[in-house]
Amino acid sequence: MKPPTPSYGFRVVAEEGHARRGVLTTPHGDVETPTFMPVGTQGSVKTLTPAEVARTGARIVLGNTYHLWLRPGAELIAEAGGLHRFTTWPHAMLTDSGGYQAFSLSERRTVSEDGFTFRSHLDGSEHHLSPEEAMHVQGLIGADIAMQLDVCPPGGSARGELDAACATTTRWAKRCLAARRADQAVFGIVQGGCDVALRRAHADELGAMPFDGLALGGFSVGEPIDSMHAALAEVAHHLDPERPRYLMGVGTPRDLVIGIAAGVDMFDCVLPTRNARNGQALLREGRIIIKQARYKDDQSPLDPTCMCATCTGGYSRSYLRHLFLAGEILVLRLISEHNLHLYGELVRDARESISSHSFPAFEARWARAGARDVA
Amino acid sequence: MKPPTPSYGFRVVAEEGHARRGVLTTPHGDVETPTFMPVGTQGSVKTLTPAEVARTGARIVLGNTYHLWLRPGAELIAEAGGLHRFTTWPHAMLTDSGGYQAFSLSERRTVSEDGFTFRSHLDGSEHHLSPEEAMHVQGLIGADIAMQLDVCPPGGSARGELDAACATTTRWAKRCLAARRADQAVFGIVQGGCDVALRRAHADELGAMPFDGLALGGFSVGEPIDSMHAALAEVAHHLDPERPRYLMGVGTPRDLVIGIAAGVDMFDCVLPTRNARNGQALLREGRIIIKQARYKDDQSPLDPTCMCATCTGGYSRSYLRHLFLAGEILVLRLISEHNLHLYGELVRDARESISSHSFPAFEARWARAGARDVA
Repeated sequence: MKPPTPSYGFRVVAEEGHARRGVLTTPHGDVETPTFMPVGTQGSVKTLTPAEVARTGARIVLGNTYHLWLRPGAELIAEAGGLHRFTTWPHAMLTDSGGYQAFSLSERRTVSEDGFTFRSHLDGSEHHLSPEEAMHVQGLIGADIAMQLDVCPPGGSARGELDAACATTTRWAKRCLAARRADQAVFGIVQGGCDVALRRAHADELGAMPFDGLALGGFSVGEPIDSMHAALAEVAHHLDPERPRYLMGVGTPRDLVIGIAAGVDMFDCVLPTRNARNGQALLREGRIIIKQARYKDDQSPLDPTCMCATCTGGYSRSYLRHLFLAGEILVLRLISEHNLHLYGELVRDARESISSHSFPAFEARWARAGARDVA
Repeated sequence: MKPPTPSYGFRVVAEEGHARRGVLTTPHGDVETPTFMPVGTQGSVKTLTPAEVARTGARIVLGNTYHLWLRPGAELIAEAGGLHRFTTWPHAMLTDSGGYQAFSLSERRTVSEDGFTFRSHLDGSEHHLSPEEAMHVQGLIGADIAMQLDVCPPGGSARGELDAACATTTRWAKRCLAARRADQAVFGIVQGGCDVALRRAHADELGAMPFDGLALGGFSVGEPIDSMHAALAEVAHHLDPERPRYLMGVGTPRDLVIGIAAGVDMFDCVLPTRNARNGQALLREGRIIIKQARYKDDQSPLDPTCMCATCTGGYSRSYLRHLFLAGEILVLRLISEHNLHLYGELVRDARESISSHSFPAFEARWARAGARDVA
């Protein structure tokens, strides 16, 4: 069942195995899928301008409702004309519900049938995030796509906890859809840990509701990575094929390759930008820890085959290492853009390989990406 | 006396009072004067790419020999092809001698007739900076213009100290010229505090030597600002008119206006970039402390009349304030570029007003720049 939220749409244009290429239509332009969403936690993809983010290939970014709600506040963003105008990002945008951070970052939080009560990690002020409030806040922020409030149990949770999380998430799904803004797309979130039967049942439950897309939450939350990959392979293609499938908070380049093969269309993760700020550059052939002495007088770019602004700009590994050791902000930008460009290239290559029915070659090309130190 | 260092030159193209417009020729292009040199302390104008620095109007930047010598090391920079190639800055470049930071930043430093002995502020290692070593290190770094090693007494120094500083600086000037790289321009540094007669005598001494330019050091080192302005008005125009005059480490927009009126051609200062990182945006009409609550929901750009990338990019004061309070790096870049653009506009306006003989109107236009909070 595919609901007709105005101005939104999704169509699959090519398939190979479970992998598929598609186009997500939003009021801020089309987004080709598979796609990776850089994370703009506090209204900024860290260190970069919107133009720089866009030139890595990204056409949709993620904003964190928890952070934006607490600072600068959703009303302020609404008064500014919404998060697009506030941040000057012209393309598509998705916000999470705020529930995940309300649970993981805040202090003295409690969960009830009516949502999360917590104290701000910034000033200790008390807040309540119900399904209705999550939709209200996301409506004020005004991204193209809002996420339902869900319960996300940590990896390794007992079956009883997973059952309860799915049941609460389903009840909250209904409340979120009832409270939605009519002109904003809403995605449901499938839980169930690594239990395939539970995941599939929950996917069916949420798939019966008029969501514009379906997400897989509760992955990459502490479970063994092989368990996640195994569950993903059984669950992703079970989600309604007519709607976009979004794997939340994942992951490494390898996770993306496996996720795309499993039938996922959308990803987000702080990894490329966070690792960049820790001095880690991701390459198709592995990774570079820029502070290592081996790069001290290495005059080559991070990746001689990369067409990003950093690698084509004349910046050597030697210079980047110097900037990193000297604490210069410029290097954080240069590696962040490089890493996001790698992710942009990965999903672009995935799309083209699906269209040309050469997905195995794509998987081989990206098998080593970011995984270990380059030779 | 104007020495013929190959590929260098300076000519005055217009004058009004003591103010003058000129062109400084270097192997990395012409620099129109009056000019402001953004400071790239550690091989990076903090937070910005070379392309961003250049679009603020800057065509020459300053590198700090002390910092670059200690990290990454002058030999490493030489092996990379020099500081231009290492940092990717394509336009002109000047390095200071390292003496000022060796004295002010390092530990356990001593001064002798043979230079400075000091311990690195980074790792405590001992170094010796003689006139010959200062020229050797600057030769390795390879900027277009090198500065002689000088003795820079703090503001308020007694006449005896000023005399001694001038005398030592003159002896070091000869040694620096004897040790210079033949293809690198070298500027002498006039000392003398706020003592006009001493300054003029020292200017004459150094002016008799084959320097490519003459600098005023030892200003803005703790003396009352009015004393500096008064001395500057008597001293700057006394420097050989055929060579570029460089006022080191100065200053505020007002200092630049006063310096240009006094006959100065070149300036450098960390103020526009350092203040930016402290959240202070400089405007023609004053300044904006971006964290102030008054900007909380101010949707206007920093300066609606400014054509910099920040002010024309859609970034509101409200958004910049949010980024600053949230600790987002992006805002440091955006205000840094804005502030450097203001300096670029100031010197551009000075040049045009000198050519059109409307310097008083220029002085009036910039009388309030950066000076106090905007109304």
